Amino acid sequence: MNNTLAYGVQNATAPVAPLCIERREALGRDVLIEILYCGICHSDIHQARNEWGGGSLYPMVPGHEIIGRVSKIGAQVSKFSVGDLVGVGCFVDSCRHCAACAEGLEQYCEAGMTGTYNARDRRGELTFGGYSERITVDENYVLRVPDNLDPAAAAPLLCAGITLYSPLRHWNVQSGQKIGIAGLGGLGHMGVKLAAAMGAEVVMITTSAHKAQDARRLGAAEVLLSNNPAEMAKHANSFDLIVDTVPVPHDLNPYIDLLKRDKTLVIVGPLDPVGVHGAKLIGKRRQVAGSVIGGIAETQEMLDFCGKHQIVSDVEVIQAHYINEAYARMLKSDVKYRFVIDIASLR
Amino acid sequence: MNNTLAYGVQNATAPVAPLCIERREALGRDVLIEILYCGICHSDIHQARNEWGGGSLYPMVPGHEIIGRVSKIGAQVSKFSVGDLVGVGCFVDSCRHCAACAEGLEQYCEAGMTGTYNARDRRGELTFGGYSERITVDENYVLRVPDNLDPAAAAPLLCAGITLYSPLRHWNVQSGQKIGIAGLGGLGHMGVKLAAAMGAEVVMITTSAHKAQDARRLGAAEVLLSNNPAEMAKHANSFDLIVDTVPVPHDLNPYIDLLKRDKTLVIVGPLDPVGVHGAKLIGKRRQVAGSVIGGIAETQEMLDFCGKHQIVSDVEVIQAHYINEAYARMLKSDVKYRFVIDIASLR
Repeated sequence: MNNTLAYGVQNATAPVAPLCIERREALGRDVLIEILYCGICHSDIHQARNEWGGGSLYPMVPGHEIIGRVSKIGAQVSKFSVGDLVGVGCFVDSCRHCAACAEGLEQYCEAGMTGTYNARDRRGELTFGGYSERITVDENYVLRVPDNLDPAAAAPLLCAGITLYSPLRHWNVQSGQKIGIAGLGGLGHMGVKLAAAMGAEVVMITTSAHKAQDARRLGAAEVLLSNNPAEMAKHANSFDLIVDTVPVPHDLNPYIDLLKRDKTLVIVGPLDPVGVHGAKLIGKRRQVAGSVIGGIAETQEMLDFCGKHQIVSDVEVIQAHYINEAYARMLKSDVKYRFVIDIASLR
Repeated sequence: MNNTLAYGVQNATAPVAPLCIERREALGRDVLIEILYCGICHSDIHQARNEWGGGSLYPMVPGHEIIGRVSKIGAQVSKFSVGDLVGVGCFVDSCRHCAACAEGLEQYCEAGMTGTYNARDRRGELTFGGYSERITVDENYVLRVPDNLDPAAAAPLLCAGITLYSPLRHWNVQSGQKIGIAGLGGLGHMGVKLAAAMGAEVVMITTSAHKAQDARRLGAAEVLLSNNPAEMAKHANSFDLIVDTVPVPHDLNPYIDLLKRDKTLVIVGPLDPVGVHGAKLIGKRRQVAGSVIGGIAETQEMLDFCGKHQIVSDVEVIQAHYINEAYARMLKSDVKYRFVIDIASLR
């Protein structure tokens, strides 16, 4: 076994602090990865603090935006070699035989994907995430990271990146289409970059006028203030797709009004119930849909796309001892746009 | 002009009573139709009583489920001859040049379709519906009704029929798929018949156990009681499409749980806001959509389909003087499943 230094929480109210975990040997199809960087996702806070009601598992080592280098491979590994720059995202296994897995949609595995942390794997062992020196993962759940990307800034692609890339592809964004990204945070800023790289005319939809300049820098052609009814009315019936990344409960109906006939509003945050006016859907055959991360094949496609278009996240790299302060700042939306832990700082 | 006997209302609180209207001469592309039967849609009541907040126009002659015979044609009419059995549905005109009209989706006309009644036509004249002896309509908005269908029972196809047929086709119902129809009324009973004729395994979803036998007679393979959580749980994640016809505010979330990954709940009634749990959409990439009636081409396709499969509505044919009582009974859901006025009784 590999004794491994990590940062995590012992219960729902404990601060993030050092702890020691074990990683299994890289046998069979396993790859042992020395972690370089791990992004901090808002869901890390929710899970560490047991805010999702599902019963968090402790001790917990969060982190599912992992970038590292392969340091050892099992005898049957065929896809990776020692030294490869690789990534691990939100899950490290799935049932591998349901319809979703067969279609490469492991994120919708009917038996439930195995979360990278806060889950039990197929052996019954607790999984631990990327706030740690190393991780052992089956090669089928490991991604290849293009060498031309800054590894620290690439880490958030593994969750924030794919969370936006997947709906943009699934709803078939085409060059020249008018695409709305609602909310400019860790998810939203990736949405702007990715949709712009796909050739779309990206409109950042926000309540914060002060975010306009940054949105344009990231690739938005326009900024639409959703709390300005006159401006919203001007954009009615004009969007081909809107991806809503706003993490707090809010009224979806003004966004639905922005959609053309037959177009879709996709929500990607775990929203509380929202009141959707049936008439707004019926009158133009519009749709409200949800989407979660992406499968392994699509995540690889996203990383290759980002390599080709030189897309990474805007990050603030931090030391491990700063994680608790980072959490506090995230709760105040005080980050542009993703904290990434330099894993060398764990030691 | 054609002085025409009709039944209608003078204001939002008046009973339905006889009145006299004028119909324009059938010139150019116009067809004059002697009406045989007109179905009563629940929306007739909403509009007669000004319950939709849009400001109903009076005097109002309701009725948009019209079956009749062509009695006169304008010089440029090419599609119809005197004596043809024809139908008129929810609209009698549209702008004819927007993207929706160009695609044959006149029901989504960007300038607004011209309602068969309670609307102003392109000349600025008030439109009057099918509770009347005759109607003059541009041939491009007239449907051909298969001669093998009972004309009284075919009338509701023009609204209730197409309202269900269109989403079943748009969301691509295939033979063998499991399709849910929620609510067994005028719309729902057409959904059961149409989806069964498409080869689907139809499940009637209802809160009324006493409707089970009738649902099976109409073509449902199974009846699912939505107020029985254990039964609902057994059907979780198993439906390919659900069309929700329930006309009163209700919780959509139990229906969303029934859908497979990537599948859609379509609402076809003008619903009040409903609280949709984002997580239920996100976890399986499900969708909630709306749909309204159908375009002229699709309505013709539906009528031809009904001719081929011998599908009509279950109706109770009434005399004109009974309309007010029919309205009262509809408000108590006391009709199986559509009232149809014998227009000969107007005289």
